[in-house]
Amino acid sequence: MRFSVAQLNYHIGNFEANKEKIISAIKKAKEENSDLIIFSELSVPGYPPLDLLDRYDFVEKCSRTVEEIARECREITAIVGAPTINTNPEGKKLFNSALVLSEGKILFSANKALLPTYDIFDEYRYFQPDRKFMVFPYRGFRIALTICEDIWDEQPFDNEFEKKRLYTVSPMDELAKQDPDIIINISASPFSYTKIDVKTSVFRNKAAKHGIPLISSNQTGANAELIFDGASMIINGKGEICYRLPFFEEELRTFTFEDIFSGMPPETGMFSNTVELIHKALVTGIRDYFNKSGIKKAVLGLSGGIDSAIVLCLAVEALGNENVRTLLMPSRYSSEHSVSDAVALADKLNVRYDIISIEKPFKAFEEDLAPLFAGKKQDVTEENIQARIRAVLLMAVANKTGCILLNTSNKSEAAVGYGTLYGDMAGGLSVIGDVYKTDIYRLVNHINRNEEIIPQNIISKLPSAELRPDQFDTDSLPEYRILDSILYQYIEQQKPPERITGEGITREITERVIRLINYNEYKRYQAPPILRISSKSFGQGRIMPLVSKY
Amino acid sequence: MRFSVAQLNYHIGNFEANKEKIISAIKKAKEENSDLIIFSELSVPGYPPLDLLDRYDFVEKCSRTVEEIARECREITAIVGAPTINTNPEGKKLFNSALVLSEGKILFSANKALLPTYDIFDEYRYFQPDRKFMVFPYRGFRIALTICEDIWDEQPFDNEFEKKRLYTVSPMDELAKQDPDIIINISASPFSYTKIDVKTSVFRNKAAKHGIPLISSNQTGANAELIFDGASMIINGKGEICYRLPFFEEELRTFTFEDIFSGMPPETGMFSNTVELIHKALVTGIRDYFNKSGIKKAVLGLSGGIDSAIVLCLAVEALGNENVRTLLMPSRYSSEHSVSDAVALADKLNVRYDIISIEKPFKAFEEDLAPLFAGKKQDVTEENIQARIRAVLLMAVANKTGCILLNTSNKSEAAVGYGTLYGDMAGGLSVIGDVYKTDIYRLVNHINRNEEIIPQNIISKLPSAELRPDQFDTDSLPEYRILDSILYQYIEQQKPPERITGEGITREITERVIRLINYNEYKRYQAPPILRISSKSFGQGRIMPLVSKY
Repeated sequence: MRFSVAQLNYHIGNFEANKEKIISAIKKAKEENSDLIIFSELSVPGYPPLDLLDRYDFVEKCSRTVEEIARECREITAIVGAPTINTNPEGKKLFNSALVLSEGKILFSANKALLPTYDIFDEYRYFQPDRKFMVFPYRGFRIALTICEDIWDEQPFDNEFEKKRLYTVSPMDELAKQDPDIIINISASPFSYTKIDVKTSVFRNKAAKHGIPLISSNQTGANAELIFDGASMIINGKGEICYRLPFFEEELRTFTFEDIFSGMPPETGMFSNTVELIHKALVTGIRDYFNKSGIKKAVLGLSGGIDSAIVLCLAVEALGNENVRTLLMPSRYSSEHSVSDAVALADKLNVRYDIISIEKPFKAFEEDLAPLFAGKKQDVTEENIQARIRAVLLMAVANKTGCILLNTSNKSEAAVGYGTLYGDMAGGLSVIGDVYKTDIYRLVNHINRNEEIIPQNIISKLPSAELRPDQFDTDSLPEYRILDSILYQYIEQQKPPERITGEGITREITERVIRLINYNEYKRYQAPPILRISSKSFGQGRIMPLVSKY
Repeated sequence: MRFSVAQLNYHIGNFEANKEKIISAIKKAKEENSDLIIFSELSVPGYPPLDLLDRYDFVEKCSRTVEEIARECREITAIVGAPTINTNPEGKKLFNSALVLSEGKILFSANKALLPTYDIFDEYRYFQPDRKFMVFPYRGFRIALTICEDIWDEQPFDNEFEKKRLYTVSPMDELAKQDPDIIINISASPFSYTKIDVKTSVFRNKAAKHGIPLISSNQTGANAELIFDGASMIINGKGEICYRLPFFEEELRTFTFEDIFSGMPPETGMFSNTVELIHKALVTGIRDYFNKSGIKKAVLGLSGGIDSAIVLCLAVEALGNENVRTLLMPSRYSSEHSVSDAVALADKLNVRYDIISIEKPFKAFEEDLAPLFAGKKQDVTEENIQARIRAVLLMAVANKTGCILLNTSNKSEAAVGYGTLYGDMAGGLSVIGDVYKTDIYRLVNHINRNEEIIPQNIISKLPSAELRPDQFDTDSLPEYRILDSILYQYIEQQKPPERITGEGITREITERVIRLINYNEYKRYQAPPILRISSKSFGQGRIMPLVSKY
């Protein structure tokens, strides 16, 4: 029996576009003589639909779209993901369902049993977990049809305080009682660079434990913060990966059950390394944020530093050099090389740049505020004014020319509040807000792997905000190697302060960094959406009290 | 038997302060010869602790604090709320528990069975629902000890698509099998002006259904967005309210079981009206945001319009006139009365004001941008620049003098995106971001009920942003009566567009308003925290996709 895995990129709530994409994949699969085509979790509305699921009209449109797709399933069966209404008088109003469509009808449905409700997941907000487990009999095969988390009943977390078994039931253990031949798992599983191996082993272990093959169909592409890596897997009954679809790309691929049962040879060769995947993830994230917003063009401020340099490279790759423009906005405190380095990069990438000194508005603000600030010393206020003037200029260009402003703050800065609200923290999308400064350098090396795109000057200079004379990041922060190690242990691993250790890390530095992290929640509350690449990104997956004392 | 209800205001994560507050209430209850004192849900860490619950060190501090409180419970029993560790190898790591403390020990514990996970609630993110139901025997009484949502198994929602029975179990039905004499419910139930009657009837129905009295102990005070109204109730076995503690105030009050059983007379007299409660809620929200941030002073921009006028009144009430200052920032487009009306109000409230024209920085920006904008028409860009200049000035004063900037946007504007990101949308706290424009006028009437505090000029002028000559809100928006009705039906009630009706509401206007709401998600994503008074506020309780098409 032939089946196709359709690893596609959906647009949330864009039912017409999603339907057309699904139907054209069905046609292609038929051309390849497939009997069965497998789409991903909530493929009909796109994942995650979030609170649109609270709207009856939205859920009804899902159902109508499913019916329209079912009518296209002639001589082929399709598995799609959609919310369905829980008709039981008690419980949440919806199920997260896998629907088997054939000859205009819904032939079978399985509802998700394990609903992730942690980090960026909040599925229990909308869905009732179902506890009925039924194998789907199909042309002599017995299929265990599962949805994403259903096979993640046992998983390791970066935070050791989490239990390995978050749920009180194992759907595959239940389904195994009905003697399935094969596991199908439809998913919308977002990328995290710390989870690549975890995901592979969770999938391999399930296949090996039950001694049957596993076919996965994962979503690809990005929806705002979340970037889905695709990488759908075909795993044989020994738990070996036979085939993996590409990372971050749409693909339709056809296999046969018989090949997998007869021991289709395992995949050889390495898959991409972590930095390469992060790079692809960020480019995907930018591209889809713009595509799905219907906006083509971006603007960003180019400071001559490494953060804006890398954001420019990624944006040019995602949008094309003709769609990216930059502003260089030197101040009285800018070093000469700031402008020349930025110009060199813009020229190298063939990107438009305009140079606007911020001196005039800065003077105007100084004069306006002089009567109020008489007798008061210069402090961070004047630094913030400069950062905010730049934001006014960038947003003016964005507003006038229909661009989105790209934010260039990194995760280390965002963590300790080293940034100005409504200043350098402004933007429609934060590109590297989930990338620690030390990883920025790894990304730069990757971008420069074949030729020097980002000039060496930009890479080797000491990081500085240039908001007062001779200012360097290390004046007020520990060096980034130490800072990032503390941040990772505190944010991703959620270690108690006294268990945060490493070379150069003292209790005093740790406590100072943690104070900064906690104090600056209010700034991050108003930050732009951040492309998520880690297991704990600032944003919807990390919700902290704003006026706590801890 | 004598018991005390302790309705207190906790500070999240401030274990020392919460402990002292709890212990001093225990002492006071002992002075009143109480046998039992009842605190509210998660009183030890303060509610809602959010992702601090993911930290082992945080949960451990809770446990240590509980032990310290237990040691103070000599000759008195206390019921406190705290997270406890789920020692079962499967499931979420914590329970949301009510702990009965006596003579240095935990005598009994009940774990929450129903975990609200909708709107601003996300308790299933942290807690395992418990399904063991045990009555607590205490001095000859059998107490059904429940936690907040446990008695909300049946409730109406503003969104008709929600089920009335969200859960598949009713804790009180289970506990009723063990013949309890009385229900105790500890809660942290946030205020919503549409839920006052609902809450009362849920509580009354439970008591009446089981024919036994109900004692509730609710948290008061505000934690960022959420404002807890207190209003703890004593209800007799007929479902009559015998006593209600005050709204939005701390109070400790002692009763006897015997009085309630013997039919303590029901409360007479009306409780406060809705506008009065909203007013108290907002003042509480401001006061606690500042108190719990450790910041005393506020700054805001006074435009001469009604929104900033009301925010000023509320801030002065919450913080004192000596702690609030204002900036008046006229532009070339400001009408003369803008400044004079604002001055009149500031004088009336005896609040400092400074007048700074934005002309100089505006000219500086115009000149700087002229080469880039050559040949392009004036548009919303220039309006946004003015709004952003004001934000730069306000934030400069905030930064220099240690104030928090209060945001003055209302819910109607926020809904349709009638505001400038990093401009008038800036601020540390949005005071009226959950108040529709038509309700602003109700609040103004309430504030002016005894004397004219807000000048009539400010009330009667047509709303205008004054960002270009002769601009009025109604140029680009329907009149507020119509707009607010559409917004309420779409946002709070989540009605499908075709079911939104009312005087003056056409399909065309509805669709235009909905398009604006959906288009402007990206602006609201970066808005300040909003004091929540409705059943659906912008912020953490409403999570929408950013790049959807719906």
